[in-house]
Amino acid sequence: MVVERDDISEILKDYDKSEITIGTIGSHSALQILSGAKKEGFKTLNMVTKERKEVYNAYPLARPDYSLEVKSYKEILDKDFQLKLTEKNVVIIPHGSFVEYVGAENILNDFHVPIFGNRESLVWEADRSKQREWLEGKAGLKMPREFKIDEINNLSIVKLHGAKGGKGFARARNPKEVSESLEYMKEKGLISEEDLQGDLTVQEYIDGARYYLHYFLSKFSDDFGVPVYHRGRRLGNLLLSSIDRRDETNIDDIHRTGLNPEELKEVGIVPTYTVAGNIPLVARESLLPKIYKMGEKTVEASDDLFPPGINGPFCLETFCRPNLDFVVFEISGRIVAGTNLYISGSPYLDMVEEGLSTGRLIAREIKKGIEKDKLDEIIY
Amino acid sequence: MVVERDDISEILKDYDKSEITIGTIGSHSALQILSGAKKEGFKTLNMVTKERKEVYNAYPLARPDYSLEVKSYKEILDKDFQLKLTEKNVVIIPHGSFVEYVGAENILNDFHVPIFGNRESLVWEADRSKQREWLEGKAGLKMPREFKIDEINNLSIVKLHGAKGGKGFARARNPKEVSESLEYMKEKGLISEEDLQGDLTVQEYIDGARYYLHYFLSKFSDDFGVPVYHRGRRLGNLLLSSIDRRDETNIDDIHRTGLNPEELKEVGIVPTYTVAGNIPLVARESLLPKIYKMGEKTVEASDDLFPPGINGPFCLETFCRPNLDFVVFEISGRIVAGTNLYISGSPYLDMVEEGLSTGRLIAREIKKGIEKDKLDEIIY
Amino acid sequence: MVVERDDISEILKDYDKSEITIGTIGSHSALQILSGAKKEGFKTLNMVTKERKEVYNAYPLARPDYSLEVKSYKEILDKDFQLKLTEKNVVIIPHGSFVEYVGAENILNDFHVPIFGNRESLVWEADRSKQREWLEGKAGLKMPREFKIDEINNLSIVKLHGAKGGKGFARARNPKEVSESLEYMKEKGLISEEDLQGDLTVQEYIDGARYYLHYFLSKFSDDFGVPVYHRGRRLGNLLLSSIDRRDETNIDDIHRTGLNPEELKEVGIVPTYTVAGNIPLVARESLLPKIYKMGEKTVEASDDLFPPGINGPFCLETFCRPNLDFVVFEISGRIVAGTNLYISGSPYLDMVEEGLSTGRLIAREIKKGIEKDKLDEIIY
Repeated sequence: MVVERDDISEILKDYDKSEITIGTIGSHSALQILSGAKKEGFKTLNMVTKERKEVYNAYPLARPDYSLEVKSYKEILDKDFQLKLTEKNVVIIPHGSFVEYVGAENILNDFHVPIFGNRESLVWEADRSKQREWLEGKAGLKMPREFKIDEINNLSIVKLHGAKGGKGFARARNPKEVSESLEYMKEKGLISEEDLQGDLTVQEYIDGARYYLHYFLSKFSDDFGVPVYHRGRRLGNLLLSSIDRRDETNIDDIHRTGLNPEELKEVGIVPTYTVAGNIPLVARESLLPKIYKMGEKTVEASDDLFPPGINGPFCLETFCRPNLDFVVFEISGRIVAGTNLYISGSPYLDMVEEGLSTGRLIAREIKKGIEKDKLDEIIY
Repeated sequence: MVVERDDISEILKDYDKSEITIGTIGSHSALQILSGAKKEGFKTLNMVTKERKEVYNAYPLARPDYSLEVKSYKEILDKDFQLKLTEKNVVIIPHGSFVEYVGAENILNDFHVPIFGNRESLVWEADRSKQREWLEGKAGLKMPREFKIDEINNLSIVKLHGAKGGKGFARARNPKEVSESLEYMKEKGLISEEDLQGDLTVQEYIDGARYYLHYFLSKFSDDFGVPVYHRGRRLGNLLLSSIDRRDETNIDDIHRTGLNPEELKEVGIVPTYTVAGNIPLVARESLLPKIYKMGEKTVEASDDLFPPGINGPFCLETFCRPNLDFVVFEISGRIVAGTNLYISGSPYLDMVEEGLSTGRLIAREIKKGIEKDKLDEIIY
Repeated sequence: MVVERDDISEILKDYDKSEITIGTIGSHSALQILSGAKKEGFKTLNMVTKERKEVYNAYPLARPDYSLEVKSYKEILDKDFQLKLTEKNVVIIPHGSFVEYVGAENILNDFHVPIFGNRESLVWEADRSKQREWLEGKAGLKMPREFKIDEINNLSIVKLHGAKGGKGFARARNPKEVSESLEYMKEKGLISEEDLQGDLTVQEYIDGARYYLHYFLSKFSDDFGVPVYHRGRRLGNLLLSSIDRRDETNIDDIHRTGLNPEELKEVGIVPTYTVAGNIPLVARESLLPKIYKMGEKTVEASDDLFPPGINGPFCLETFCRPNLDFVVFEISGRIVAGTNLYISGSPYLDMVEEGLSTGRLIAREIKKGIEKDKLDEIIY
């Protein structure tokens, strides 16, 4: 049974608006979320395992007011646990680990706690075919072509079912290379037999530079960003807030060996794409109109597919090709970890207000929602 | 007919100094220029095409006071258009797109509007042989050797006539590889038949790490930077303000394919050098004396070649070789886009004043010029 | 004769605590150290050669109050010179160039001037086998295996005796490739006959992404970081303050040639690992617990090996492997140059206090030591 938007509105009605607590899971971008909330004067709450708890106390400007220890993140779905959250008037800020640990479907069906943004976007981002419907089908963005293994006739990327954070990616130029690669990765213990059971996604290899474009759609601010209108309604103001590139181990450093794929195999090095961190960058300024246009289309399409669509932060993961066209290979329908580079300002956010962060933008949007008594427009 | 320095001085005389407007073209580093000007209290003006206009309103701290819509950037050369600018007491801040869209020669001969810096430097940067005369001939900096195609006997870089932003670069180890590369690029639609008509520049390949060194020469500040004296005169104070590296698509990511050049060809990937963005970095501190020395020589040489030489921001594009020597492959005689990373401070600028940007340094220099009634020393 | 901790305590007793001067050698991270000290209200002193002096006057917020010109950095060991320092109540902040120019053993035995941190850590970092005893033996961190040349049977890194800043590193897959590489590097003038006389270190090649983790152990602050207790005592509060990656020329750009090792040889390009600068990055947030744990173990082990162990800034140089385990290949027992990226804040420091730097943390720790009259706990 889906938790309905109205259910959350009802819960919000009972919240003491002067005592809203901003909560998240201690991982991914929690430090930023917590510090942004504190800057806007909110109480904060961190749900965290014992081993991780200490780290969240290390930074005074991000230190949570409440720390709820969990043994497993699935506990968060327990009725009692949820009650503890709603009693504290908690609004959850979802992030990548939140979605991964709790599960997008579980969030949609079993999590009766207000979530900033539109929880449907988490379901849409978690499913590759829905992503494609959203970005390519509806928004008209260019995405890598997909095909079956036996159709591979050029450089391709194979992604295991549920591959996360780059784990379980492989390159191949033909069907034979797929089996060889997967076999080899299994042999090396990088993937399991089970991993191999699920469906594989095969995409054409897009050559270009990776730009992870961070956007923010504000429903209540019109003093920054570009206004997005769709079917006669204003969906909000859209801002490009920052850009990063994921740092993937070992693929971004493997060239330092000087070895070709055959030789790498001989020395036991498998090309892998695990995300270990993030690197800051800016885009050529003349690309901004294109970047904004992609963001606007994404927002509009979300309104068509799961009205009223997305709000708050989201990210388009793209390749910038040599002809300066963008190809989008993924969307994150919530804050991405790349924004952690910009905890006290980015080259773009600093032109809105010095020292601004995505975490703070979120908190400020909630604050405005409280002031306008329209929290249910940005929280579901 | 060259617009003379005296012509501009005359125009400046008629300017209402209390109403100076800082103007630029909406591209390249305009957001930074505009936000820097606003921080110093100037009115700002953006010349921009309809499609790009919106982006320049997205960032409140950079939002221009005036927006002049153009269909084509060549309009800027129209007498009427220029009149609109001088009526608003506009001082233009030139940047890479400004030079590219309007043309260095057109600026020199037909643009009767005050430009910050020395407009002659735009002509010197736009011409490869003049660049070499400046940097190698006069300043004594080390540059890559140049030779004819049939002299290629080692790894070389071939640059098509007028190659901009890395477009139209190719690698080759012998004359045969040149024709093969160009033929292949044409076949792939990356360059046109016309592109091939112009002269080719062939340079030795310099192996090393790319450091794009951003300098600022202030005529009026002596509280930062190192003083540069030449032929008995103080040319100004020179500051290393920041450093970036251009992010080039696809050459900086192509290694992720694991394929060698032959295999890349088979899968249809051509090595290209198009600039898509910028990455921040700092140089080893013990290299700073060398870096300052290169900047000083460049400034002194400019005074010899086109007195009173360069002022304001400029950039030396360099390779830092394994022995930590620098080889300069290009100069930009004005602000570079790499400074966009540092819109509210850089590791170097923050030691002058926290949150300082190149855009703001420019505006402040103009402000000082107004106070001292010496605008004509920094504007031509 | 080792300078004893008690000797330094005696000198500190005679210091005028209201007139402490923070001093360093003009190189490596001196700008940051000097600017951090100024921000905390200290007088500052720079020991610098004539050629470098000017650069240290270019940045007003880092400009030293006193500049002591030296012809050679070894002068610093002269009795008279040391007297000049103690007369000015100087506390030295050691950095990589300080250790390299003056020599770790000389500092331990002949430098009777108070040094921030534990000077024994400089000796421990300067010696590869001591490093291994510290990190692997005592702290239990994973390090690359070491072996003899004739044992090489997989991809390995060979480091010449005393190799600094990446100079004198080579890759090899077997003993034959070692001699070939070294021979070739000698032929190319990259290493000397003398370089070849010393012992070689051979380590297994670790594939992964390089993360240089900057820590700070504060003895006096308990409002940030995680507390480290060992054998019943509080050793201090440990903070992850920032992260960088060294930019190595030419190894990080060599892939842009598209050439394989054989072809590189033909065109005369030798893979080299010279550090030219630093690039900023952040780590995946879920790695922080692991990162803190490594730091804690390092601090505890230092207390075991050279009590009371390390204090102030230090750095673990690591590879982050595809399975997200870290392998430590080096430690710097003092400030590292990578912190120069963060002269006015880092994504981590900004959650302690906006705009904080490692240089400023050092100065503040000294200030607290003065207030508590416990300087001898952090200075030796």
